[in-house]
Amino acid sequence: MLPAKKRWLNELKEFLSLASISTDPAYRKEMIKTAQWLSRHLKNIGLSSELIKGSGHPLVYAEKIIDARAPTLLICSHYDVQPVDPIEQWETHPFRANVRKGRIYARGASDSKGQLFAYIKGAEEAIRSGKLGMNVKFIIEGDEEANGKSLAEFLAKNQKKLSADSIIYAGGAMINKDTPAICYGVRGLLALEIEAWAFKDNLHSGSFGGGFANPAEVLAQLLTSVKWKNRQIAIGHFYDGTTEYSDSDLESPYSEKELLKMTDAIKLVGEKRFSTIERISSRPTFEINSFASGYTGEGFQFIIPNRAVAKVSFRLAPGQTPKRAFGQFKKFINMLNPGTVKISIRKVDEAMPALMAKTSLIAIAAAKSLQRVFGRKVAWYRDGGAVPIIHDFQQITANVIMVGFGLLDDNIHAPNEKLDLKNFFRGVEFARDLLMGS
Amino acid sequence: MLPAKKRWLNELKEFLSLASISTDPAYRKEMIKTAQWLSRHLKNIGLSSELIKGSGHPLVYAEKIIDARAPTLLICSHYDVQPVDPIEQWETHPFRANVRKGRIYARGASDSKGQLFAYIKGAEEAIRSGKLGMNVKFIIEGDEEANGKSLAEFLAKNQKKLSADSIIYAGGAMINKDTPAICYGVRGLLALEIEAWAFKDNLHSGSFGGGFANPAEVLAQLLTSVKWKNRQIAIGHFYDGTTEYSDSDLESPYSEKELLKMTDAIKLVGEKRFSTIERISSRPTFEINSFASGYTGEGFQFIIPNRAVAKVSFRLAPGQTPKRAFGQFKKFINMLNPGTVKISIRKVDEAMPALMAKTSLIAIAAAKSLQRVFGRKVAWYRDGGAVPIIHDFQQITANVIMVGFGLLDDNIHAPNEKLDLKNFFRGVEFARDLLMGS
Repeated sequence: MLPAKKRWLNELKEFLSLASISTDPAYRKEMIKTAQWLSRHLKNIGLSSELIKGSGHPLVYAEKIIDARAPTLLICSHYDVQPVDPIEQWETHPFRANVRKGRIYARGASDSKGQLFAYIKGAEEAIRSGKLGMNVKFIIEGDEEANGKSLAEFLAKNQKKLSADSIIYAGGAMINKDTPAICYGVRGLLALEIEAWAFKDNLHSGSFGGGFANPAEVLAQLLTSVKWKNRQIAIGHFYDGTTEYSDSDLESPYSEKELLKMTDAIKLVGEKRFSTIERISSRPTFEINSFASGYTGEGFQFIIPNRAVAKVSFRLAPGQTPKRAFGQFKKFINMLNPGTVKISIRKVDEAMPALMAKTSLIAIAAAKSLQRVFGRKVAWYRDGGAVPIIHDFQQITANVIMVGFGLLDDNIHAPNEKLDLKNFFRGVEFARDLLMGS
Repeated sequence: MLPAKKRWLNELKEFLSLASISTDPAYRKEMIKTAQWLSRHLKNIGLSSELIKGSGHPLVYAEKIIDARAPTLLICSHYDVQPVDPIEQWETHPFRANVRKGRIYARGASDSKGQLFAYIKGAEEAIRSGKLGMNVKFIIEGDEEANGKSLAEFLAKNQKKLSADSIIYAGGAMINKDTPAICYGVRGLLALEIEAWAFKDNLHSGSFGGGFANPAEVLAQLLTSVKWKNRQIAIGHFYDGTTEYSDSDLESPYSEKELLKMTDAIKLVGEKRFSTIERISSRPTFEINSFASGYTGEGFQFIIPNRAVAKVSFRLAPGQTPKRAFGQFKKFINMLNPGTVKISIRKVDEAMPALMAKTSLIAIAAAKSLQRVFGRKVAWYRDGGAVPIIHDFQQITANVIMVGFGLLDDNIHAPNEKLDLKNFFRGVEFARDLLMGS
């Protein structure tokens, strides 16, 4: 291994040793320490940097302005990580990075410290070589895993500071271990809790069964009415604004056979006329995420439960908004409510969908750099999950994409998280190449 | 209070002081002690008695045969009681009976030690007066609250020992505090657990939503298909053998207004063409007793749950059997199973329904005695719950009824269980009157 690579690896290990768990208040000091470490590191490699306080953990901002008239690339990522439970399933300590078989194992290795660090090292290389071809800005948040709003809030008030000609969200996965990928779409989200309330207490089903509405049954009826039999969503005007097109470029990291094997599912199902990859990455969906009613422990309670609660969520396609979907859902449920129970609906979370142009300047430049580094054509994909900040970035510029170097089996949010070192180094090379603007 | 009544009350308090909780192994010794106390007490008042070992707690058997050619009345009840949790809600100790405002408060006061004891004291009075007009047998089980089968098992093998011309199941409620009642029907029961299994692990709903079946949705669809919109059960041939008739004698302890007030329900609903009291006491029903799928704790997990489990139960009308209903349900679910998840169905409990003739010898005799003691006409009702032993007793004789002296607000299975003492004494008088065969 080249001396430079050894140094990068040692620095990455140091970064990964900081337990920046944003969701657990016990790690508040570690969060500050991590932000400070990161800011100091960015200064050391030649950027100016500062910590920015907001509603959550500090944001780390850094920039290297070579010329006010030159184009600016903003790179966004996060330094916080998921909790480590179940800790006993880790083969090595989650905060003592361990290299085995060409992979680095640690919490945050793939999501997203390792990926972010590849961009940072790429910037360092470009600066060091004297060939940095554009202004570069980093905005790195500490609330991504905590679903915090501090980055969005800062962005809303500091569009000038974060002004850029192009934005890369540094994160995500490659299509497979040797094929680079660009993500050009994320689904939106509307997460709700819905309750059907029937009685002040559970009723004995022997003494009262047959004469009263059962809230579990009513809620089950309402929620199963949300989709037609053909699996399309039955809510009026729900699809308004979405485009029903097949994108022949859209690539899937998995074959259908692999998806079945991974999940043990009996079969793949979904909307007709759409491929599996479209169904799971670009089409709107409705899922029951949880359903609870009655006594669900050991044994049997002969009751009509007094209430039933479900957590449900919509994934939204570009053209839809969580606000409109929420209004439509409430109207739909109120229309179908049989009037035998009290229904209440509470919004828990929301995110705007986003579609990013594959023909934007940054998309074309990134695809070129990726092809140069990997020696392969780039795969284009859409992420079925939510990255709400993408929509906010699109208010700054249309030149937005996501590029990451993780793999889908990196165990993010799980024990033994890892990152392929070969792809970490390719990531450094990509960032250097891109920033040199060659 | 007459000296005899004072003695009965003191004896009842002693009986109630024995913590005969059958479902908790920690109370095994108390169960034995209670059975022994009861058997000794029955001997002391002039019956022969023995404990009978079976698959559960001992049965207490006692008899007084005055003449092998005389008719025999078998009285059945149970000496075990419900657990006492939540103990902190009891105003006085559940096993130190306390008399307040003409009511005796203790676990088992109404269900069923107090009611049983009224029959025992009635038998004692009849024997003591020398006017016992028939042979009398008691069979008292210790597994009623534990849903044990020892009585049914003993009955199946000892029909001769328990042979009788008439049988009274000692338990149940009056129609109101001054109106005696005879129960002439119980619903049957089929309790099931049904699981829809889809994946080996939960799937992230962002990454996979739209391409896979959701087991909570599939199970909700299957379970809401069990009833038509008119609330009748949609399973083929389900109602075969039942009679759709309105029994003008059927009385309800509650007005519809009272039912709404008790439960806080928005409205009463059920099968058209049937009154509320028929719906809740004599008609077949299907209820979802519990439903669990996904992460139901605080917060939100964005998953397609890997499985969903529901506890469901049918109440069955005379003419139906749990065995047939189970076969019909399995066939129905298999027919509707979309083939996207694995469905498994497990039987948890079952009970045969029973209809008891209002014109049987024992029904007529009991109604006469009740009217004599209470000075009011008897109300006839059916219990929507299950008393599986009734069906077994009907294999011995058609002369079977249920007569109890509890009230519906006695807090059975709840803190501060109580029995009205006035009705306890009326119960003694009733049993004495009936046993004298006057």
